[in-house]
Amino acid sequence: MDVAVIGLGLIGGSLAQALATAGHRIIGFDADPATRGTARTAAAQAAPQARWQVAGRLRDAVAHAELVALAVPLPALSPVLTELAGYEGLVTDVTSVKGPVRDLVRQHLPAAAYVGGHPMAGKETSGFAAADPGLFTGCAWVLCLEPGETALPGWLAMARLVTALGARAVPATAAEHDRAVAAASHVPHLLAAALTTAVAGDPLAAALAAGSFRDGTRVAATRPELIAAMCGGNAAAVGPALDGVLKTLGELRAALDGPDPVAALRPLLAPASLARAAWPVVAGTVVEVPWHADALLELGRAGGWVTGVDDERRVLRAVRPETVGGRP
Amino acid sequence: MDVAVIGLGLIGGSLAQALATAGHRIIGFDADPATRGTARTAAAQAAPQARWQVAGRLRDAVAHAELVALAVPLPALSPVLTELAGYEGLVTDVTSVKGPVRDLVRQHLPAAAYVGGHPMAGKETSGFAAADPGLFTGCAWVLCLEPGETALPGWLAMARLVTALGARAVPATAAEHDRAVAAASHVPHLLAAALTTAVAGDPLAAALAAGSFRDGTRVAATRPELIAAMCGGNAAAVGPALDGVLKTLGELRAALDGPDPVAALRPLLAPASLARAAWPVVAGTVVEVPWHADALLELGRAGGWVTGVDDERRVLRAVRPETVGGRP
Repeated sequence: MDVAVIGLGLIGGSLAQALATAGHRIIGFDADPATRGTARTAAAQAAPQARWQVAGRLRDAVAHAELVALAVPLPALSPVLTELAGYEGLVTDVTSVKGPVRDLVRQHLPAAAYVGGHPMAGKETSGFAAADPGLFTGCAWVLCLEPGETALPGWLAMARLVTALGARAVPATAAEHDRAVAAASHVPHLLAAALTTAVAGDPLAAALAAGSFRDGTRVAATRPELIAAMCGGNAAAVGPALDGVLKTLGELRAALDGPDPVAALRPLLAPASLARAAWPVVAGTVVEVPWHADALLELGRAGGWVTGVDDERRVLRAVRPETVGGRP
Repeated sequence: MDVAVIGLGLIGGSLAQALATAGHRIIGFDADPATRGTARTAAAQAAPQARWQVAGRLRDAVAHAELVALAVPLPALSPVLTELAGYEGLVTDVTSVKGPVRDLVRQHLPAAAYVGGHPMAGKETSGFAAADPGLFTGCAWVLCLEPGETALPGWLAMARLVTALGARAVPATAAEHDRAVAAASHVPHLLAAALTTAVAGDPLAAALAAGSFRDGTRVAATRPELIAAMCGGNAAAVGPALDGVLKTLGELRAALDGPDPVAALRPLLAPASLARAAWPVVAGTVVEVPWHADALLELGRAGGWVTGVDDERRVLRAVRPETVGGRP
C-alpha cells in the first residue's frame, strides 16, 4: 500500500520502518525539521528493499496515499486533520484514547474511512532515535470497529497491515477500548504516583523500599504532563475504573480493622493471586472468525485477537483464550 | 562468633552460608528433617573455610551459641522461643514485623539481649534450595534499637555481623520499622491485588494490559496466605499507611471529575515523578556516627545506613543521603 505516516516519533518512526520493511511504499512527515532530517537520513540508509521517503510538506506526504497513519500526539491531531481536509481514503491513528479521536476525525474528514488504532507498545525512551521496526512484534494492536459505522473493508485492510507486522489485531469499539485501557494502563499510573507520594515523605521508608515498591512505582517516574494528558484525556473512563480499584481497597482496609485481619484478608487476596499468575494469556484456541463486525467484537470482548486475514476463504484467523469469563 | 541459625529456608539458609563464608562458626537447625538433610549435605560440601554444621536437635544447635538467629516464619516463633527458655545470650530474627516479635521475645526470654532484625532481601523462590550466600550484598538490614531497652553492645555486634556481609545496617525502633515497611512493602502488595482484581474480570482489558500493569501487579501473584500474614500481622501500621495512599487517590479521583482534568492532575503527579526519579538513594555523604542510640536512630530516620563499626575509634561509619527531608 501507499502509506503516509504523519509524525515520526517513537511510534510513527517505528511504524514507517516496519511498514517499509514489510514492502509498503512509505512517505513520512514530521512537523519538526530536525526530526525530518534525521528520519530522511535513516530512511535513505535502510536496506534497499526497506527504503522509504520523508516529505518536506504534509500535503506531499499524503498526495498519493491509500492510507494516512496519524502518529502525532493528541493535542497535535486537530491542526493535522484541518490540513487533511477533503481526504477521502483510509485513516488510522495510534493515540491512547479512541472516543475523542473518533469525534475529531468525523468532524474534519467526514468522507474518510476511519479505523482508530492503538498499538500497546512503548518504551521508556521516545523520539525517532528510539524507533525500532520490531517494536510491534507480539503486541496487542486495537483496531476500532463501530457497528454500522466502520466500513469492514477498511478494518480488514488495517488487520492485514498490522498482523503482517507481527501484532495481534484486537477488535473493539472506541468506548470498549477507552474503558479497557483506563483499567489496564491509566489507573496503574495513578496508583504508582499515589504509592510514591506515600513513601517520598518518609526517608526511612524510602531506604527500606525494595522490589515491591520498585515495580509498583516504576511508571510514576513518567513525565507528569504525559500521565496527566493520558489519564485526563480519558477521564470519563478512568474515573469509574479508579472507583473499581478504590472499592477493592476499601474492602482490604476494612479487613485490616477487623478482629482477625490475616483471616479476613486471605479470601480477598486469593482471586487476584490466581488471576495474576494466569496473566498474560499467551496462547489459546486457534479459531476462524467470519468477516462480521459482531463476531469480531465478540472475539475482542473475550480477550481474543486476530492473527491474519484469509482473503480466499473470507475468514479471519484468530486466537481465543481458553480461560474466558471471570478472569484472564 | 558462634552462631545458631534456626530455620533453614531462603533467608536462614542464605544467612548460614554467608556467615560461614565470613568466618563464623555456624550450627544450623530446621524442624523439617528433609531440609536438615539437604542443608547438611550442602554445608559439608562447602569450601573448607566455609563449612558449617547442621544439628539434629534445636538444643544442640544453641548449646554453645553466642548468637541465636531466628529465621523461622512468624507463626513458628512462639514454639521455638519456648524451647529456648533460659537462653541469656544475643538473639536476633529476620521476620518482616518487629513490634509483635519484640513482645514475644521479652515474654519468653526476659534475660536475653534481643536485637530485632529484618533484611530487606528476597526472591521469587523460597526454601533452602534457593539459598544464596550473596543474598544480602547491598540490601538494607534493619537492626532494631529501642532507647533505654536495647543493650548497645548487642546492637554493635549485629552491626558488625551484617555490614561484614555487605548489608546496610539501618537503625530504627520496632514501631518505626513497622510503619516504614507498611508503606514501602505491605501496601504495594494490596495495591497490586486491587489492580489485578479490576482487570481480571475484563478479558479485553487483560489482553491490552502491558508494562504498567505487568510491573504494578507483579507481587499480586504471591501466595495469598503470605500477603495476608504479612499485611495482617502488621495491620496496625498497614491501615494508616493505606489511608495515606487512599487520600492521594481521592485527590486524583476528584481531579478527574473537574472541568479540566489534565490541568488538575499535573500538579498532583509532579512531586511523585520527581521523587521516583530520585529513588533509590544509592549514595550520600560518608559520615561518622557516635556509639549512641539517639544518633543512630536519627541517622535511620534521615534514610541513612551504617556501613561498618570502627572499634578502635568507637564510631560507626555511615552514609547519610544528601536529599533528606521532603523526599528520598
